[in-house]
Amino acid sequence: MPVLVPQATDFPGWYQDVIAKAELAETGPVRGTMVIRPWGYAIWEHIQAEMDARIKAAGAQNVYFPLLIPEGHLRREAEHVEGFSPELAVVTKAGGRDLQEPLIIRPTSETVFGEYLARWIQSYRDLPLRLNQWANVVRWELRPRLFLRTSEFLWQEGHTAHTSEDDAAAYARQIHSGVYRSVLEEVLAIPVLTGLKTAAERFAGATSTLTCEGMMRDGKALQLATSHELGQNFARAFDITYTDEDGSLQLCWTTSWGSSTRMVGGVIMTHGDDAGLRLPPKVAPVQVIIVIVKHDPDVSAAAEYLERELASTGLRVRVDDRTDLGLGRRLTDWELKGVPVRVEIGPREFAQGTVTIARRDGSDRETVKLSAAAKAAGDGVQLVHDALFAQAAEALTSGTADVEDLDAAIEAARFGFARLRGAACGPEGERRLNGEGLSVRCLTTADGSVPATADAEDLYAIVARAY
Amino acid sequence: MPVLVPQATDFPGWYQDVIAKAELAETGPVRGTMVIRPWGYAIWEHIQAEMDARIKAAGAQNVYFPLLIPEGHLRREAEHVEGFSPELAVVTKAGGRDLQEPLIIRPTSETVFGEYLARWIQSYRDLPLRLNQWANVVRWELRPRLFLRTSEFLWQEGHTAHTSEDDAAAYARQIHSGVYRSVLEEVLAIPVLTGLKTAAERFAGATSTLTCEGMMRDGKALQLATSHELGQNFARAFDITYTDEDGSLQLCWTTSWGSSTRMVGGVIMTHGDDAGLRLPPKVAPVQVIIVIVKHDPDVSAAAEYLERELASTGLRVRVDDRTDLGLGRRLTDWELKGVPVRVEIGPREFAQGTVTIARRDGSDRETVKLSAAAKAAGDGVQLVHDALFAQAAEALTSGTADVEDLDAAIEAARFGFARLRGAACGPEGERRLNGEGLSVRCLTTADGSVPATADAEDLYAIVARAY
Repeated sequence: MPVLVPQATDFPGWYQDVIAKAELAETGPVRGTMVIRPWGYAIWEHIQAEMDARIKAAGAQNVYFPLLIPEGHLRREAEHVEGFSPELAVVTKAGGRDLQEPLIIRPTSETVFGEYLARWIQSYRDLPLRLNQWANVVRWELRPRLFLRTSEFLWQEGHTAHTSEDDAAAYARQIHSGVYRSVLEEVLAIPVLTGLKTAAERFAGATSTLTCEGMMRDGKALQLATSHELGQNFARAFDITYTDEDGSLQLCWTTSWGSSTRMVGGVIMTHGDDAGLRLPPKVAPVQVIIVIVKHDPDVSAAAEYLERELASTGLRVRVDDRTDLGLGRRLTDWELKGVPVRVEIGPREFAQGTVTIARRDGSDRETVKLSAAAKAAGDGVQLVHDALFAQAAEALTSGTADVEDLDAAIEAARFGFARLRGAACGPEGERRLNGEGLSVRCLTTADGSVPATADAEDLYAIVARAY
Repeated sequence: MPVLVPQATDFPGWYQDVIAKAELAETGPVRGTMVIRPWGYAIWEHIQAEMDARIKAAGAQNVYFPLLIPEGHLRREAEHVEGFSPELAVVTKAGGRDLQEPLIIRPTSETVFGEYLARWIQSYRDLPLRLNQWANVVRWELRPRLFLRTSEFLWQEGHTAHTSEDDAAAYARQIHSGVYRSVLEEVLAIPVLTGLKTAAERFAGATSTLTCEGMMRDGKALQLATSHELGQNFARAFDITYTDEDGSLQLCWTTSWGSSTRMVGGVIMTHGDDAGLRLPPKVAPVQVIIVIVKHDPDVSAAAEYLERELASTGLRVRVDDRTDLGLGRRLTDWELKGVPVRVEIGPREFAQGTVTIARRDGSDRETVKLSAAAKAAGDGVQLVHDALFAQAAEALTSGTADVEDLDAAIEAARFGFARLRGAACGPEGERRLNGEGLSVRCLTTADGSVPATADAEDLYAIVARAY
């Protein structure tokens, strides 16, 4: 019997199965919510740390706004409340009595950011103001799926205000490539297509939305992070103004951008195989597992020595000395959990001064000298990152078909992405695609870079089924 | 006019004033909630990082449980729900309709931890299970005060399960001293009294509560972190059992422990003075501020060189080159914000090859050679930590009076702490103290260590007014 439901048989079943068996998460007591277990949460912590460092390097500062928002505040931006209202959770009682005004649990903190940005910004000296928040948000979800779509999720949302449209646009692009794309490709080994959303797919109120789209192993697209230019729409709704150098009052130009625990779902579905998770080393809770094959004091001493040697180079390493459990079960378990590099030490090998190294990227097992084990395991960690990225990039390339018209796009996107040349797809074309369960994931240029505007010439539309 | 309301005139007024003017936080749109601004949030991030590293070193793993809890779950532990019910916020509508069962916003995640611990623990092999969560919680607050008591706050809560009472007790003590006391004293420079809570002051359901109590500058006590031994009470309520090595079913022994954004309030009130915050260097968002006195290209170059030199040693350093603002205002502002070390560079001094270094601990300003500035500033950072700790320790010692009976304790605790010898204070004595606005903050031994049990002989009761 296979460890997991095979991907080819039932991809959603595989996804659920691997999350449960690798002990990443479970459903919470309230429908649609999620309990993130240590193995899953550690992955999120590493993602968060890598993201946070890049956000700070981009000059944004972290803040924290309250969970609860008065219902009236939310109505301030009409488009905004309309988008969220079916998803809101409402507090009507608190402190033992009925509240006069219901309170909303934040579906985003956008309206509160707006209110306080307006208060904090007085003069051009206060600009750019670049803020970010890590928090939980609640959006009621009727068809929940762990990590991908849950009624509560963890995310970061950035909100910035600038003196000019150019400055705001440049910042949204900096976050898009320097934070999101960098984390996705360099940390999570997920190659992404980048581009602009069409008007129909754009965030309500945005003048331009940049997106990173990954291809999952079932050929579907996953939107992994978006960055929005909001023009002066948001500043107008919240009265975010500043006095310029000449003393006259001006409206700000703003941006917003977010990413969430959904990225963990992206990691699972980009790299996982029928044996379980394959974790990108930079976010793996354990990067090297040293498995003691059979109880033996000399082997244990060697394993501990190797553990210290690897830990001293900054690697996350652990020894599995549960020799009272079957070896097969233990190896299967570490594969399931996606640990990038496994070192096996047994008494027989030890007597010959060797260990076996197995990488989770599908490469052949190697026998190396014990004295060379630390270097081989350390190198293995980097090799796994490169191999996972290369495999996913190959899947993305081979899964993307160039097409010339809508019919061909619909046909090609039965599995994978269709890259539709030219302006062949307008709003009408998009409606037709939607009817087929497809959508334009982004508009991109010939060389895959982000176009200047969504109505630039010679663009390509990436058409796919999406999560 | 002084920068702030003086502490001696109106301590609560000073507290509010310094939080507003140092831009730490503001009240949120919903009564009792708090917006944490970048300067305040950065302090919290440093506290959190230091705490989290120690929690992990103590073998606990982070998890995340959902924000919303079905009302029925909360009723499972009777004592628990009784303690929290007046403080609960209740969601009655979600996803556009009335909910069949109301949902509670977690006032703690204790009941959910209980449910899942019961599920995850099967055998003695699964123990000890040590989990921790960083999250926001909501407890409706009628008399809110920023950082100290807010309707929503950020905290960590740890929950662990063990095979024996001794193991649970040892772990609660390890968290108490290796995590909480260590962060308070070594990171925040806050000397604390440690001991056990009396039965009356103990957490509902706990068999023993360890506490860290600090003395604020107005002589009042602030409870900064508590660790609870829960015996088998909690395990019984949630059916947390395991199969031991002999195959028989046993109840676990559990602990829980928590600390929160209240620690930021403790930093403000332990160290702050009439000129503003005085931040312990390890959590100061900026540890060294280099102030350019007057615009001059050579001075700017020297300042930038010094900045790089200090940053390369891992210090958080910033240059203030806002020479179009008055120098006095800028110096006042950095004092207000509590930056530990200030380096001033002006053209006249620069011509003589010197800079001025001012520490925020009240020590004299020094003139040092530019070539020695990096070392002096770096040393200054450590000196400020030591000085703040020494000053607070001196205030704690001189503010604590040894007394022999309850009358003397009541008299002595008009300002500061009374240390009441022997068993002079039983439940009846505690009721009398409560009537006077006082309480027993903790029971401690002659040498200030944590007693084995609350009914040990020769204990001292620390009596004080408290936040």
